[in-house]
Amino acid sequence: MELRPIGVVRSSLRERADAPNQPHAGAPEAVLAIDDAYADALNRIEPGDELIVLTWLHLADLEVLQCHPQDDERKPLTGVFRTRSSDRPNPIGVHRVTVTAREGATALRVNALEAIDGTPILDLKVAL
Amino acid sequence: MELRPIGVVRSSLRERADAPNQPHAGAPEAVLAIDDAYADALNRIEPGDELIVLTWLHLADLEVLQCHPQDDERKPLTGVFRTRSSDRPNPIGVHRVTVTAREGATALRVNALEAIDGTPILDLKVAL
Repeated sequence: MELRPIGVVRSSLRERADAPNQPHAGAPEAVLAIDDAYADALNRIEPGDELIVLTWLHLADLEVLQCHPQDDERKPLTGVFRTRSSDRPNPIGVHRVTVTAREGATALRVNALEAIDGTPILDLKVAL
Repeated sequence: MELRPIGVVRSSLRERADAPNQPHAGAPEAVLAIDDAYADALNRIEPGDELIVLTWLHLADLEVLQCHPQDDERKPLTGVFRTRSSDRPNPIGVHRVTVTAREGATALRVNALEAIDGTPILDLKVAL
């Protein structure tokens, strides 16, 4: 169960404090810079495709088991498995994006992504 | 980037050949048997909740970069990042389920899951 990053997020979001708590809550467009070794795995991806992006939320606290959802102290303490918090035992982010352009052989521009610059990318899948 | 399994799938699906290619294409109900160490992370999960389950597809071939979607040879060879194939560099499964019952402190019964018995579970998140 060892992960190999397949690429990295390029984004104007530079710090965790800048990232919105929820998708599409003002997330900027971003570029998925995929490693050249995985160029073939991008075959037939086109603008307009909806993809699921899995990321490794590398700044997360892996020891947190409960939190207040959306950092809202008025909300009751809740198990992290019933939240979208990035603090969790395996900090894998799940993001739904639309491809807006292919840039060169191995980069994809996407409409909105709530992950900061430098976040490792683990996987892409076609969305259902 | 090291993964810690948080539990295991218990299912009547015993072999990869039995698992449907697509979610809800006849997938049976299943039990998410979560390790006791993560009981607190399940706090407030209730029947009716819709969750995203991340699994480690432990029988996958990690070297495959292209395939025919749904194992249909009439479909053109496509990069795995534009498919849902389990064969991919980081074989993480993304499944959407509905919790139908809590069983004891750390097991969740879910309505349908296309992962075989023994598949390691990596994460649960509330679905959007």
